[in-house]
Amino acid sequence: MIKASIVGATGYVGMELLRLLKNHPQVEIAHLASHGNAEEKISDIYPSLKGICDIKLETVDPAKIADSDVVFTALPYATGAETISKLYSLGCAVIDMSADFRYISPEVYKQWYAVEHPHPELLAHSVYGLPELHREKIKNSRLIGNPGCYTTCSILALAPLVKSGLIDLNTIIIDAKSGTSGAGRKPDAALYFCEVNDSFKAYGVTTHRHTSEIEQELSLLANRNIVLSFTPHLLPINRGILATSYAVLNTTDVNAIKDAYDNFYADEPFVQVSHGLLPELKHVVGSNYCKIGYAVDKRLGRIVIVSVIDNLIKGAAGQAIQNMNIKFGIDEKCGLDMPAWYI
Amino acid sequence: MIKASIVGATGYVGMELLRLLKNHPQVEIAHLASHGNAEEKISDIYPSLKGICDIKLETVDPAKIADSDVVFTALPYATGAETISKLYSLGCAVIDMSADFRYISPEVYKQWYAVEHPHPELLAHSVYGLPELHREKIKNSRLIGNPGCYTTCSILALAPLVKSGLIDLNTIIIDAKSGTSGAGRKPDAALYFCEVNDSFKAYGVTTHRHTSEIEQELSLLANRNIVLSFTPHLLPINRGILATSYAVLNTTDVNAIKDAYDNFYADEPFVQVSHGLLPELKHVVGSNYCKIGYAVDKRLGRIVIVSVIDNLIKGAAGQAIQNMNIKFGIDEKCGLDMPAWYI
Amino acid sequence: MIKASIVGATGYVGMELLRLLKNHPQVEIAHLASHGNAEEKISDIYPSLKGICDIKLETVDPAKIADSDVVFTALPYATGAETISKLYSLGCAVIDMSADFRYISPEVYKQWYAVEHPHPELLAHSVYGLPELHREKIKNSRLIGNPGCYTTCSILALAPLVKSGLIDLNTIIIDAKSGTSGAGRKPDAALYFCEVNDSFKAYGVTTHRHTSEIEQELSLLANRNIVLSFTPHLLPINRGILATSYAVLNTTDVNAIKDAYDNFYADEPFVQVSHGLLPELKHVVGSNYCKIGYAVDKRLGRIVIVSVIDNLIKGAAGQAIQNMNIKFGIDEKCGLDMPAWYI
Amino acid sequence: MIKASIVGATGYVGMELLRLLKNHPQVEIAHLASHGNAEEKISDIYPSLKGICDIKLETVDPAKIADSDVVFTALPYATGAETISKLYSLGCAVIDMSADFRYISPEVYKQWYAVEHPHPELLAHSVYGLPELHREKIKNSRLIGNPGCYTTCSILALAPLVKSGLIDLNTIIIDAKSGTSGAGRKPDAALYFCEVNDSFKAYGVTTHRHTSEIEQELSLLANRNIVLSFTPHLLPINRGILATSYAVLNTTDVNAIKDAYDNFYADEPFVQVSHGLLPELKHVVGSNYCKIGYAVDKRLGRIVIVSVIDNLIKGAAGQAIQNMNIKFGIDEKCGLDMPAWYI
Repeated sequence: MIKASIVGATGYVGMELLRLLKNHPQVEIAHLASHGNAEEKISDIYPSLKGICDIKLETVDPAKIADSDVVFTALPYATGAETISKLYSLGCAVIDMSADFRYISPEVYKQWYAVEHPHPELLAHSVYGLPELHREKIKNSRLIGNPGCYTTCSILALAPLVKSGLIDLNTIIIDAKSGTSGAGRKPDAALYFCEVNDSFKAYGVTTHRHTSEIEQELSLLANRNIVLSFTPHLLPINRGILATSYAVLNTTDVNAIKDAYDNFYADEPFVQVSHGLLPELKHVVGSNYCKIGYAVDKRLGRIVIVSVIDNLIKGAAGQAIQNMNIKFGIDEKCGLDMPAWYI
Repeated sequence: MIKASIVGATGYVGMELLRLLKNHPQVEIAHLASHGNAEEKISDIYPSLKGICDIKLETVDPAKIADSDVVFTALPYATGAETISKLYSLGCAVIDMSADFRYISPEVYKQWYAVEHPHPELLAHSVYGLPELHREKIKNSRLIGNPGCYTTCSILALAPLVKSGLIDLNTIIIDAKSGTSGAGRKPDAALYFCEVNDSFKAYGVTTHRHTSEIEQELSLLANRNIVLSFTPHLLPINRGILATSYAVLNTTDVNAIKDAYDNFYADEPFVQVSHGLLPELKHVVGSNYCKIGYAVDKRLGRIVIVSVIDNLIKGAAGQAIQNMNIKFGIDEKCGLDMPAWYI
Repeated sequence: MIKASIVGATGYVGMELLRLLKNHPQVEIAHLASHGNAEEKISDIYPSLKGICDIKLETVDPAKIADSDVVFTALPYATGAETISKLYSLGCAVIDMSADFRYISPEVYKQWYAVEHPHPELLAHSVYGLPELHREKIKNSRLIGNPGCYTTCSILALAPLVKSGLIDLNTIIIDAKSGTSGAGRKPDAALYFCEVNDSFKAYGVTTHRHTSEIEQELSLLANRNIVLSFTPHLLPINRGILATSYAVLNTTDVNAIKDAYDNFYADEPFVQVSHGLLPELKHVVGSNYCKIGYAVDKRLGRIVIVSVIDNLIKGAAGQAIQNMNIKFGIDEKCGLDMPAWYI
Repeated sequence: MIKASIVGATGYVGMELLRLLKNHPQVEIAHLASHGNAEEKISDIYPSLKGICDIKLETVDPAKIADSDVVFTALPYATGAETISKLYSLGCAVIDMSADFRYISPEVYKQWYAVEHPHPELLAHSVYGLPELHREKIKNSRLIGNPGCYTTCSILALAPLVKSGLIDLNTIIIDAKSGTSGAGRKPDAALYFCEVNDSFKAYGVTTHRHTSEIEQELSLLANRNIVLSFTPHLLPINRGILATSYAVLNTTDVNAIKDAYDNFYADEPFVQVSHGLLPELKHVVGSNYCKIGYAVDKRLGRIVIVSVIDNLIKGAAGQAIQNMNIKFGIDEKCGLDMPAWYI
């Protein structure tokens, strides 16, 4: 059994990690830690867990938590890095949900997050935890920067086309829409029920930080620098991200596109590409799948790609567990093999 | 492995059965049958199942389906009974989601469903599939009438009080609210998105058929005839039932109430009673739990009970699987041990 | 033109008052005052008003505001009473949205609000602003305690039956469900989108303050003391209250019930009673109407009444304007004669 | 008073027309006609209108209806044209909600609607009813093709930039999201509550008919042929369209963009452009406004424009009434001067 702990257990991602880990047959929960709610039971905060997981929350003490095999950290960016650094030095595997260990370059991090990277020396040891791109490195790293939700959905939609050179890399636009759980559990008037319900809006237009993550990973695939437009929107639902991506095609060969997707994801357990049907949010919400469909617009020589994930699962907690499975040599689908809820 | 089949697999309850059975470690799917969609794959109808369950739907042929250990039937009341009768005579265990085998008396059935019972001779062999009331009979029956969603939520709220004589049996009122999936997947203008969304309504006031099921079971517990008010309402959400029940108390002893609940549900794996916190829908949706809380109104000498379930799980598919586990001697929680989604 | 002002203009009720007053042909806005946002424009807080109403918010200074004919006060209970007292002494008509001037007895107020009434001497001058019960007094008062949202919906459902003696006054139960705007705009974690959406819950069970308002008004009608059960619930929608009320009937004469309703509301511009159809929220949301339907349960000798209002209109801002119209001798429907939105 | 009639009164657009016309001070309703529900009262179909508008529906008989000054036709495309042709020949002004009279070229119509245009000879007399582009022609025409909902929102976002040559016309992408009322009231399984709620999807990708309308009008403005990408999505809300539009800029001069918008909409009563704030759906839903904001992405040399409307008002019924006001020489804002609902 893998001894797993969660630091920052009381946010939505922490809760989702716990919900999924409870059903993982090879995991036992070692510690749940929280800066704000130590001494409370997790089931007092999330009554859905009552009778299922009534573990008491601890303070965030790396020395105590370090008896874990793996620690999932869901702390604010920059300020959480000290804890991560200690856990790492104490020998734990750390899967971090923040942005701190997603970047190759501390300069890019500083440019988008407006702070100096707190532990740039660790970036040489960390890996970007998107299994579809970095599975081998994930196996061999003890510090995994779990990707952002928007970025997972966007990168998976575009990676095969970027890698294969089938699209004009100067024309990429990603128009993404996310459920509100992506914003976390915080006292922001813009997140009150009556403000979100029955409405819809764009936010962070031209400036959202996930842009830089997508650019980093697609640039690596293309072996050249890519910049792109990324526009997030807030959906009046709890879960799910749908990204609609646009690019000018370098080809008129529809089969080449089909092959690019099929080859890229041939052995992937959690990516499904459909050459016809466009996926909807309800096809993935509740599951760890990313589903992708596309339409070729011959009239304009463009492609439109639709990709969907559950932002809390493949976009956060599920992907973190997938990384854990890879790292610990378990079947990658273990504990994650559930269909979407549909209803 | 138990060979399980679903007849009427394409409705919401059929889909939910399949979703849950796919994760049940001791079940393999034998047949999926449907009157309307034979030859299609179930994953064409529910794309959320693509790559996970792509079984082809069959016509409803009892002779072929009868090689199953258990058949879950989700067919319209009355018209589905012929199929059930054949499956039963061919030796299968049948767990029926319709109202046909929930009643002791064919007269009560006729009174509320306005048709003659299609197979009254089978009622001697069938059992009302509410484990908390009839676990022993369920073990020994091959024909289980799986309870209605509203009835499960209502009976579990009131059973301990009725059994213990703590409430005035002439004063019971149940005000219940259900998500829209309870209405099934049918072309009814009242179920279009724009009609349900942002609205709320009562329906079937004084006439809803589940009234008779609740009265039957509570009357059995009280050993006298009970009639009661039951009012269902339609919530603009997909899943979940919350029932608010009212009765005049025969006692002022709050501990007697606490003891009645604690004793009644002492060993129940899926019923949780809280003596303080009132449960919310999000504490159970996605799980097989029924959660119950209550407030004693000393000013009026009344009790108000709040009970919640997921209508598609504890109110239908989950309870059916719980019945299967009981019937086949498996751990009752097997395949059903997941926490609510919360978000 | 009536010069109208709003104190506490930035909450949902203040915003709704402004939205409705902007379309009132006989009103001009004099002052918008706010404790927290003075010097901002109201349209900075509610961008929906940009270009339509860009008035700058003022501090709450009764001396300046008193040049208004009528002031709508939407302040917290108790703490707002000082402002109201000053405005009243300076000669304004005041229509108060808080609970402070809804009660006859300061003792009842203290019992339910847990504070001494801040200005009990004014209760002799104030009137409970439910036009259907107190229209004549409203004409002659300068201090109107605008009723609560739940109370409006509940009292209107029951008043004709209570007045006519057709129901057993010891058996009244009101099970009410409200949209989330009724909770106001405040940083309460229980009101975040992801907590309310897809869920449903009861709250304030046996203790909600509106109980006392309903009891006061129905007791006046019955000319005896009435106590009753009132249970509020939170709907995952923005607007609307539906109350399902229960009582044991003293009669089996369905026509007597019909006549009681028809006579009581014969000349009411904003109450509609249907003797058949039960109203749904979408039949009133966006309008100032209260719609009422009922079912007689002959089997049990009970009546079930369903009443609906828009909590921000007939339950707050619309009713306040109706009171203003009455007070100033304008056509009662002026500025309020819009149908519900339906979609 | 203008005598106005509605043909096809029972759909959502017909209902919305009636709701708005009831509050228009210079309109009286002459006829409500419907193919399917003649002899019923409109308030039987939409109980929200009970007591407010109980007019009986008539069959669709142009000879009888022709005593109207203006007829709003909300019939299916192609099949409704015969009725429109007769009404037109009988001297009425006709404002048609279908696509039939939106096109200059019957060939373009045929290409996108896959039928021969039923009355091409009338296209010489009809005008595209977007006041911001064709106000003068609307004054002088008796046959107004009221624009589509998506097209209104999209054209208004882009027109100033296209007209002024500030964007590269080969790079336009419109990613649009609409509430479900845009799909009308029809028995489509994809529109059931449980299918739409909590989900989100793209549809009609690369093929949606509104593409051709947008291209026609922007091409006219540019005086050259424009093709563009248009992707509609279905939001789990009732009302509202938000379009996110993308184009490569021909300029780096932000003031030129500001001036282009300000000049183009200087005198428009229902278009508001913000040079900073991006509009949200709740800023317009319930109103006839189109609100526009934009962000210049200097890093990429692109512009991102966000535009919002209420699809049933500025996108259908409100715009039709605005056209009526223009045509009949009334104040253009008459009957349409309400702020958005916000909550």
